[in-house]
Amino acid sequence: MLITGTVVADAETIIEDGAVVISEETITAVGDREDLSDRYPDHERREFDLIAPGLVGAHVHSVQSIGRGIADDAALLEWLFDRVLPMEAEMDADATRAAAELGYLECLESGTTTVVDHLTVHHSSAAFEAARDLGIRARLGKVLMDADSPEGLEQDTETALAETESLIHEYHGAADGRLRYAVTPRFALSCTEACLRGCRELADRHDGIRIHTHASENREEIAAVESRTGTSNLRFLDAVGLTGPDVTLAHCVHTDEGERELLAETDTVVTHCPSSNMKLASGIAPIAEYLDRGITVALGNDGPPCNNTLDPFTEMRQASLLGKVDALDPTRLPAEAVLRMATEGGSRAAGFDRIGALREGYRADLIGMTTAHARTTPIHDPISHLVYAAHGDDVVFTMVDGTVRYADGEHVGVDAEAIRHRANRHAKRIADRI
Amino acid sequence: MLITGTVVADAETIIEDGAVVISEETITAVGDREDLSDRYPDHERREFDLIAPGLVGAHVHSVQSIGRGIADDAALLEWLFDRVLPMEAEMDADATRAAAELGYLECLESGTTTVVDHLTVHHSSAAFEAARDLGIRARLGKVLMDADSPEGLEQDTETALAETESLIHEYHGAADGRLRYAVTPRFALSCTEACLRGCRELADRHDGIRIHTHASENREEIAAVESRTGTSNLRFLDAVGLTGPDVTLAHCVHTDEGERELLAETDTVVTHCPSSNMKLASGIAPIAEYLDRGITVALGNDGPPCNNTLDPFTEMRQASLLGKVDALDPTRLPAEAVLRMATEGGSRAAGFDRIGALREGYRADLIGMTTAHARTTPIHDPISHLVYAAHGDDVVFTMVDGTVRYADGEHVGVDAEAIRHRANRHAKRIADRI
Repeated sequence: MLITGTVVADAETIIEDGAVVISEETITAVGDREDLSDRYPDHERREFDLIAPGLVGAHVHSVQSIGRGIADDAALLEWLFDRVLPMEAEMDADATRAAAELGYLECLESGTTTVVDHLTVHHSSAAFEAARDLGIRARLGKVLMDADSPEGLEQDTETALAETESLIHEYHGAADGRLRYAVTPRFALSCTEACLRGCRELADRHDGIRIHTHASENREEIAAVESRTGTSNLRFLDAVGLTGPDVTLAHCVHTDEGERELLAETDTVVTHCPSSNMKLASGIAPIAEYLDRGITVALGNDGPPCNNTLDPFTEMRQASLLGKVDALDPTRLPAEAVLRMATEGGSRAAGFDRIGALREGYRADLIGMTTAHARTTPIHDPISHLVYAAHGDDVVFTMVDGTVRYADGEHVGVDAEAIRHRANRHAKRIADRI
Repeated sequence: MLITGTVVADAETIIEDGAVVISEETITAVGDREDLSDRYPDHERREFDLIAPGLVGAHVHSVQSIGRGIADDAALLEWLFDRVLPMEAEMDADATRAAAELGYLECLESGTTTVVDHLTVHHSSAAFEAARDLGIRARLGKVLMDADSPEGLEQDTETALAETESLIHEYHGAADGRLRYAVTPRFALSCTEACLRGCRELADRHDGIRIHTHASENREEIAAVESRTGTSNLRFLDAVGLTGPDVTLAHCVHTDEGERELLAETDTVVTHCPSSNMKLASGIAPIAEYLDRGITVALGNDGPPCNNTLDPFTEMRQASLLGKVDALDPTRLPAEAVLRMATEGGSRAAGFDRIGALREGYRADLIGMTTAHARTTPIHDPISHLVYAAHGDDVVFTMVDGTVRYADGEHVGVDAEAIRHRANRHAKRIADRI
C-alpha cells in the first residue's frame, strides 16, 4: 500500500507531499510522494490530508470503559472504593470483554494504536481476547491485589502470582507478537511486599515482560505507604524491585528530589495522565523537570471513569497546557515535546521497538487524518495542529501492524454497534447494582 | 418543527424521550416526546440522540481565526506584539471577512450559537456582515486602541469613538435583533482614559449596548496599569466606568480580595477562558470563588492563536478540570456548574435574554448531537456527558433563531469549502509577511 499526504514522520520530521509505503506489517519506505509513486506504481493507493504515527496510550484501563461517567465530581476515596472497585468486582467475563472491546474501539477510532492496559483482577483473558480480535497492539496485564482490597477483588498472593504466570504463558507474544504481558500490581497499598517482590521475580523469569503499576498519584496514598513502610513510595517500590527500565509507573504526581533522582538513575518510565490528575484533583506532575533530568515520559488517558475519554489528542494538548500554566511559562512542554511523549515515550513505556515513528523498517502502525473542518483551518505547522487543534474525531484511517482496522468512519471486520450495545447493557446492569 | 431525543433543557433538567417544538424563531413547547408528537402531528420531524441549548462563546476573536497555530509556545509579549497584532494590522477587509466567516463556521459546527466577539480595529463591518450572513447570534464590537499600540492599529481617540458610534448605528439590532453591539476597548493599556470614559458614554447613550474588554489576564499587564494609574486594574476600570451589569470582562485571572468584592457589588460579568489562560501561562482564575460570591461567570475560547480551537465542549471540560486541580478538590466546578457558565452565564455576558435553555418562549437556539461513538458510550448522565466526554464534532445539527444553519455535517446555504479556501489563502499571505 502507498499512503500519500502530509507526513508527520516523528516529532522532528514533516514531509509535505509525502508518502509511506507499507509491505505486509512493515514500513518499507517514507519520502517524497512523487518519487515513491514512481517507484511503486502498482501499490494500492490511499490519500489523506495528514499521516502520523499511531499514538501510544501508555496507561489505560480499557475494562473501566463501561464506567464512563459513573463517578464524576467525586472525591478520590469515594471514586475508588464506592464506584470503580465495586464496578470491577461486579464484572463477569462477558462484561469484561464488552468493556475492553469498547475501550479498544475508542482507541482505534481516535488514533491510538498501542495501549499499556491495566486490566482487572478477574476475567483478564477476556480482555486479551478482545485485544487479539480487535487488532490493537497492547501490553496488558491482570491486576494483582492481595491486601486491603474489597471483597470480590482480593486474592491470596499465591493465586494472584500463579494466575499472572499462567496468563504470561498463554498470551505473552500472542497475535504474532502484537500482545505482550505487563505484570500489573494495582499499587503499593493493595499488595503485600511478598506480592510485589513476586511481580519482580515473574518479570525477571520471562523474556520481554514489563511491570506496570500506579505510583504516587495522590498525597493520601503516599502518606499511607510511608506510614506502613517507613519510607517514601518510590523508595519502597525501588526496594522491592519495582523500578528499572522495564517498569512503567503511572502518575508520579508527587515526588521529592531524591525520588526524581531515583527515577532517572534507574531509567524507570513515567506515564503522565494530566486529565485524570486534574479531574481527580490529584495535583500537577512535574513533567518538564522529569524531561530535563532525562526521564522517559509517556502519556496516558487513564480510565473513562476519571477522564472521561481515551482521545490521545486531548491528552497531548492537556499535557502541554497544564505544564505551561504550572510553570507560568508558555514555552514549556512545546508541541514537539508532547508529541514525543505520545510516540517515542509511549514506545518505551509499552516495550515495543520500531513503533512511534514513520520510518523505514518500522512497524506499520499509522493513522490518516482529515483536516477538512473549520477547526483545522489553517494549519501553519502540522505538529502544532496535532497537539493543539486536532481531535481523535479527525482520524479516518487506522492501521496496526499493516492491517487496516478503521477506515472511512467504520471499524473493519468488527460490528462496532453490537459492541456498543453489549457495553451499554452491561453498564446499565452494573450501575444499577452499585 | 418537532425535534425529538434526550433533551438537556438546562443544567438542572433532563427529559429522556423528550421533544422540543419550534415555531418560527421561538420554542413553543418542551416536554414528553409522545405527548408532543400527539399534539403536533403535522410538524416536520427531526430525531437526535441528544438535544441541548446552543452554547455561548462569551469571549472569542473570530477575526484571529486565520492565525490559528501562528504563535504557539511563545511568551505573551512575543505572542501579542510580534505575531497577533502584526497579523491584525495586515488584515484588509477581505481577510477580515474570511477570518470571521471561518470563526463562525467553527462555532456553528461545534455547538456555539452565540458569540461575544472581540473584533479588530479596522474593517469590522466585514465581520458584522459575516455574522449576519452566516446566521450566528452575536454581540460584536470594533476594537478601540488609541495608546501605545502598534502602527497600523493605533487610532486617535475621536476616530476610534466615532467609528464605534457609526457601527452602532449601522449594526446594533440588525438581522432582526440577532446582532448587537459591544463597545470593545482592547484593554486598559492600549487606551487613553478619555477613550475608556468615552466607551462608557457611548454605551450609556444607546439602548442595549454592552461593553466588552480584557482585564487582569496577566501579571505584567496588571503591574503596568498600576504603575501608570497608581491603582489596581479593576479599580481603575471601575473608576472610568468599565464595571457594571452591562460589562463583560474577559479573564480576571489575578484579582485581589477588594477587586472580587467590586466585581460582585457592581454585578460585572466575568468570562473565564481556561485553555487560553493555560496555553499563555497567564495563571488560574479563581472561578469557584467568583461563583461563591454570586458573580456571573461565562466561558470563552478566546482566539485560535491562543487556544487553538473554538470548541465549547473543550472549554467546559477544561474549566471543570482546571478548577478541580487548582482547588485540589474533585467536587469543585461540577458538570452542572460549567454547563451553566456556557449557557445562563453566557446569556448574561452576551446580553441576550431567552437563550441558553430550552424552555417555552425561549429563542430557538439549539443543537442536536450524535452519541454513536465508542467515546460517547455509555452515557450515565447526559450533563456529565456534555461536559466531560462530548466534542464539538458530535454536533450534527445547529439552529439559531429558528433557522437551521448546520445539518448532517453540512453548513446550510453556505459554501464552507470556499470559505476555508479563502481563509487559507489569507492566512498564508499574512503569515509570510509577519
